Amino acid sequence: MSEYLPGLAGVPATKSNISDIDGQKGILTYRGFPLEQLAEHSSFEETTLLLLDGELPSATSLADFDMQLKKNRVVKYHIRELMKNLPSRGHPMEMLQTAVASLGMFYPGKECLTGEDFCENLNYVHDMTVKIIARMATIVTMWQHLRNGYEPVNPRKDLSYAENFLYMLTGKEPDPLLAKILDVCLILHAEHTINASTFSVLVTASTLASPYSVVAGAIGTLSGPLHGGANQKVIEMLHAIGSPDKAEEYISNRLKNKEVIWGMGHREYKTKDPRAKILQKLFRNLIEKRGGNINPLFEIALEVERICEERLASKGVYANVDFYSGILYAEMGIPADQFTTIFAVARSAGWLAHWREQLADNRIFRPTQVYIGSGIRTYTPIDQR
Amino acid sequence: MSEYLPGLAGVPATKSNISDIDGQKGILTYRGFPLEQLAEHSSFEETTLLLLDGELPSATSLADFDMQLKKNRVVKYHIRELMKNLPSRGHPMEMLQTAVASLGMFYPGKECLTGEDFCENLNYVHDMTVKIIARMATIVTMWQHLRNGYEPVNPRKDLSYAENFLYMLTGKEPDPLLAKILDVCLILHAEHTINASTFSVLVTASTLASPYSVVAGAIGTLSGPLHGGANQKVIEMLHAIGSPDKAEEYISNRLKNKEVIWGMGHREYKTKDPRAKILQKLFRNLIEKRGGNINPLFEIALEVERICEERLASKGVYANVDFYSGILYAEMGIPADQFTTIFAVARSAGWLAHWREQLADNRIFRPTQVYIGSGIRTYTPIDQR
Repeated sequence: MSEYLPGLAGVPATKSNISDIDGQKGILTYRGFPLEQLAEHSSFEETTLLLLDGELPSATSLADFDMQLKKNRVVKYHIRELMKNLPSRGHPMEMLQTAVASLGMFYPGKECLTGEDFCENLNYVHDMTVKIIARMATIVTMWQHLRNGYEPVNPRKDLSYAENFLYMLTGKEPDPLLAKILDVCLILHAEHTINASTFSVLVTASTLASPYSVVAGAIGTLSGPLHGGANQKVIEMLHAIGSPDKAEEYISNRLKNKEVIWGMGHREYKTKDPRAKILQKLFRNLIEKRGGNINPLFEIALEVERICEERLASKGVYANVDFYSGILYAEMGIPADQFTTIFAVARSAGWLAHWREQLADNRIFRPTQVYIGSGIRTYTPIDQR
Repeated sequence: MSEYLPGLAGVPATKSNISDIDGQKGILTYRGFPLEQLAEHSSFEETTLLLLDGELPSATSLADFDMQLKKNRVVKYHIRELMKNLPSRGHPMEMLQTAVASLGMFYPGKECLTGEDFCENLNYVHDMTVKIIARMATIVTMWQHLRNGYEPVNPRKDLSYAENFLYMLTGKEPDPLLAKILDVCLILHAEHTINASTFSVLVTASTLASPYSVVAGAIGTLSGPLHGGANQKVIEMLHAIGSPDKAEEYISNRLKNKEVIWGMGHREYKTKDPRAKILQKLFRNLIEKRGGNINPLFEIALEVERICEERLASKGVYANVDFYSGILYAEMGIPADQFTTIFAVARSAGWLAHWREQLADNRIFRPTQVYIGSGIRTYTPIDQR
């Protein structure tokens, strides 16, 4: 038996060609393409297809995929009715797990295939993938209206994935810069090797569960505060600080008490998170464009960033992707408790790429345990205990 | 980096003191107690408490736990309304994943604790556990009525877990022998070390996701045909055989074509599955009690069992737990597509015991990958592809 390593840290659980992290150099690639290039030139739709198929699509393939996504934005009437029965104070991630689990009943597929059979049915596989990714955004934005007592805003077919998301969320024509920023945020969150939620995709997929069950499981895993919830914490921290002049004291106190500064540092990167660099640039563009008319949270964030850079950069701790995405989402009018659902919307692309990869060469996950319990003992009747 | 082992076969993923399998000798113990003793003397309620707490409960603790379970059998009105919006032809495991995921919104808990904080809050932990285990049976039996267009049968507080399950399923006073058999089936399915669904519990729990999200994820993993669906396949096979005199030919053909005989053999056991031995006895009791008035499926099953024993026992292949449980469930009037939901009802005890164990000494699961993809390459604009 191999050595027991808690959390399977450093234990290879799969062979994968989807993404790669060079934590020393701060490089993240999807299918070999550095994230900076995708953020600059690609779209969430194209990046999703790249993650799924392994290559940048031709213009025709991309147009086809885009059209399929657009056609699948609507959800059936009964899904909305189902969501109306969910308590409005529940967490959106619980709503999302519920709604995505239900999709399998509304849009059923075939029994899951593996190996060659799977690879020969890529049209079918694509179809299932589209059904999920397209509807994730609709479900998340529907909930924002339903939980406040309003009917949702129907999706539009003339908008990109990111534009349509903002449109469904607000009911207004999306601001082009905010739509661009959301598009980049979706690209940046689409994939990140074998984190806990992606790992749970592999485990669930390995029993040949349906892709809906697989994604619903991953949403559950992502919902934990140790995984998907950090950008919500950033906003809560900025609110707690209250104004830029109080940032210095707040951070000093946190550091003195060895408490986490939310949105700073990342376990995988010894240098600045490449995703954070991209968002930092967009964040500064947005501030510039807004001129004097700036959200007070932005000013606090700039000050927190400056102080942390001064104090922590020498230790390899920089603002991470959660730091900027949280602030940018707030600027789009997205409530803090919906940040993780947007993470899930984006990550559904990576999850489904890993679902595909797992099934193409499947083996059920059944690790073993170090048994540390009682030896064999004898049952005593209840009146003798 | 350690060696890559597909499916993490043989790789220890946790230290656990909940259950243990000796596959050579055919022994399965829960907290040290051989399953045969629990099946003979214990109840599902007591076994659940044993799995959760590690010791056989005192009479008072058991009575308390039983009362908590009984109080938590009802589900809120809106859960029923939510379920009414699910398509009746969907699979019950998809319904169950949906409904359990929604429970977190209806019966919210606190943010998940770990380590000492977790161990100091066992009352709270118990409370969450009861909320889930008690409602699983209600949800599964509700669905049986709702999907056929009827209002569900309300739970009763004067019946045991197994009795009440049969009562809610049929609306009739439960047959004592069938209730005893169901109770034993629940005990036998409550726990089985680190299988795929239990492993997904550990992964999801490790991000501090809520226990509802954890169990919903595990239901997804269990739903795959490589994991939870085998007893449904047994019934389908018996129907396909059609009559006892056709069993010989059917099995010969399957063996000649190297096809699976459903319900025969188990990867973990080199000898007869101890759970199968227990059920075989109950199966024979039931046949005896029924005298001449026997379901034709029983006769086919007896013949399949006899032929397989003759041909496969020398290779260490025997009828497993799925072989008998499928037939027994059919006799209780449970439709074949609900067998896996009953498996989930029973296994929720083991899942929540592992949830507890994981959080008492948590480390987030983040294994690594063997990257076999493209090296760094440059993005080409779409018109140059």
